[in-house]
Amino acid sequence: MIATLDHARALDTADPFAERRDQFTLPDDIIYLDGNSLGALPKATIAAQQDAVTRQWGTDLIRSWNNNDWIGAPQRIGAKIAPLIGAKPHEVLVTDSVSVNLFKLIIAATQLQSDRRQILTEPGNFPTDLYTANGAAGLLAEHVIQTEQAGDLADALGPETALMMLTHVHYKTGERHDMEPLTTAAHEAGALTLWDLSHSAGAIPVDLNASGVDFAVGCGYKYLNGGPGAPAFLFIREDLQERVRSPLSGWMGHAAPFEFRDDYVPAPGISRFLCGTPPVLSLLGLESGLSLFHDIDMTAVATKSAALFDLFVARVTERCGVHGLELITPSEAARRGSHISYRHPNSWPISQALIERGVIGDFRAPDILRFGLTPLYLSFEDIWRAVEILGEILDSEIWREERFAEAALVT
Amino acid sequence: MIATLDHARALDTADPFAERRDQFTLPDDIIYLDGNSLGALPKATIAAQQDAVTRQWGTDLIRSWNNNDWIGAPQRIGAKIAPLIGAKPHEVLVTDSVSVNLFKLIIAATQLQSDRRQILTEPGNFPTDLYTANGAAGLLAEHVIQTEQAGDLADALGPETALMMLTHVHYKTGERHDMEPLTTAAHEAGALTLWDLSHSAGAIPVDLNASGVDFAVGCGYKYLNGGPGAPAFLFIREDLQERVRSPLSGWMGHAAPFEFRDDYVPAPGISRFLCGTPPVLSLLGLESGLSLFHDIDMTAVATKSAALFDLFVARVTERCGVHGLELITPSEAARRGSHISYRHPNSWPISQALIERGVIGDFRAPDILRFGLTPLYLSFEDIWRAVEILGEILDSEIWREERFAEAALVT
Repeated sequence: MIATLDHARALDTADPFAERRDQFTLPDDIIYLDGNSLGALPKATIAAQQDAVTRQWGTDLIRSWNNNDWIGAPQRIGAKIAPLIGAKPHEVLVTDSVSVNLFKLIIAATQLQSDRRQILTEPGNFPTDLYTANGAAGLLAEHVIQTEQAGDLADALGPETALMMLTHVHYKTGERHDMEPLTTAAHEAGALTLWDLSHSAGAIPVDLNASGVDFAVGCGYKYLNGGPGAPAFLFIREDLQERVRSPLSGWMGHAAPFEFRDDYVPAPGISRFLCGTPPVLSLLGLESGLSLFHDIDMTAVATKSAALFDLFVARVTERCGVHGLELITPSEAARRGSHISYRHPNSWPISQALIERGVIGDFRAPDILRFGLTPLYLSFEDIWRAVEILGEILDSEIWREERFAEAALVT
Repeated sequence: MIATLDHARALDTADPFAERRDQFTLPDDIIYLDGNSLGALPKATIAAQQDAVTRQWGTDLIRSWNNNDWIGAPQRIGAKIAPLIGAKPHEVLVTDSVSVNLFKLIIAATQLQSDRRQILTEPGNFPTDLYTANGAAGLLAEHVIQTEQAGDLADALGPETALMMLTHVHYKTGERHDMEPLTTAAHEAGALTLWDLSHSAGAIPVDLNASGVDFAVGCGYKYLNGGPGAPAFLFIREDLQERVRSPLSGWMGHAAPFEFRDDYVPAPGISRFLCGTPPVLSLLGLESGLSLFHDIDMTAVATKSAALFDLFVARVTERCGVHGLELITPSEAARRGSHISYRHPNSWPISQALIERGVIGDFRAPDILRFGLTPLYLSFEDIWRAVEILGEILDSEIWREERFAEAALVT
């Protein structure tokens, strides 16, 4: 590929999502390659949040639990996520954070497997998954966390494996696990599966039901554009729902919360995995973000993602080839998510110099430059220009200037 | 007292908070007596939420974690709650829901008391407290929940009591526990204490440090006016913070979350009780709500609350005395919170008829009419008019009409 600007513009002309960008608010002076960390603001969300605040809260007040169906929001919004991940509408619930949902499901799953003591995952999984599993294991009787490298997972499954817990798309490398065969292997070994879809939902096609997945969690504020810290979702396979209990047995998961009874009776179905009162403003932000997905073909999204990726790689090779950027994301589209990562010893100051020039990607310790490729609001020209600026920064070595070495809390 | 309208208006003239009402958005055609369930919308929150959505999220995007200090919000907002509950700034953290925080603290507290097996609470405590305690006990080894009537709690403390877990102000009756002597009695028995301040924070003066309290939780969306489902807060006494661990060991509670290490190291101090990424829009709504408390004397708030209560009772006695409303809230101000509850066999249809007439209180099963008395935005004339309408509804028996018997999900 000769990744010229003209070529990028030609790709934009043929882009079926070209008009979607207008549905997002993005500053003119930045190229936003961090939608895998915090999705952009949909224009519709501005009005939706104003309505949530002024009319629903300010005017309807407490009546909104009924009149504006706040009480049904976790299930209603879950049902809107379901088609993006190959689930039935009543198999998805929006609630709490990914971390809290992981905890609930790890405990619930291991309680179904009372004769098994191993939770299998991989080293380098997203930290909250590992931390939460360790926290949960600390409360369980004699459970151990076993970590195995990606290639060895199927072989590591055994009669002690209660749960195989994996992140579908790796937050650093972008590498994607093959969900269906791994889930099948787990089931053949008598293990249950819990998939973290944080870097998958809204990014690539996912089919939980076709893959036979038991449990899943995912993030609302990345590709789903739900807003900062938007509530997460959880998935429980239909036929498991009546067999599992949430250890976080809060009142919103009760069969009849407004009877205010002393004894706990779990709600039917997935609603038993609700816990406390949900953060309604953040919840409605997620619903608004999801409105941009209601008519979307995830295969077409993935096709554009792959084309953005290919242009990025080709342009880096041509423009930055001498600077030692090492691509660590699989080049085969089916083996990755929707971001691209390079290793470089000076990734931290380079990421900061990029941000100064308006190219917002991020850094992941210890040496990774990561760029989110979000088909709904990125153009091919964006990619071309971002890599051009990266090339200028690398050529000029401006990243060596003192100010770029300063630490920031979050990147 | 002769509770005439002129008397009510005279009280309004002398009310030091009379001008605060203008800082809230309340519809002209309602009298809002449900601020103990969902606080009213502060006018400042409309602009604050718009800023959070359009500038912080829409323009600053991922950079807001640093530039707008999203990352420090749980501690920063906790520090704003601290003076309202007699805590040090670093003893309060805003995170998750009351239910999730109860779970964390019940587990953390009982793990400090490894030789004791009893969690002491009272029957009829707010359901989520009981449900969560049972869920937590189910994960612990051989722990039991012991419930004792309010008057018998001190006597029930013993060598087996790991934790005494109580709600300070009862959600139904409004009855207030005497925090200091009960906490002292618990300590003398070797037990720790966990107080739920959901109906106390922002309603009445609370002094956790003076009372020697160990742990507490509370609600952001009631008297603190944080918005629907606003995140909750938790309190951990300074000298206990380094001794406790959260069972929900998510990445935001890690000592260095952005180093993305596989091993969990809890953050110093109370921050280890963070779990996942917080719902930022809801979090900032709470911060805006708290701005209305920054210069407030809680004793003056309680004084007005008591006067609103006295007018309510006097007017009910005069206007509705023949209709059999039974006051179940203690008449001594120091023994209650900031709501008033009556028992009546037809409370449900009466509450619905009140709402139709614009008087929004609520119903609590099986037979309680509950009215929140929020000094920041209620006038004495509001109280007078609300009871007048209640009297008209009781006199006319309009509540007997069919439509008021229909069930609603939430009240």
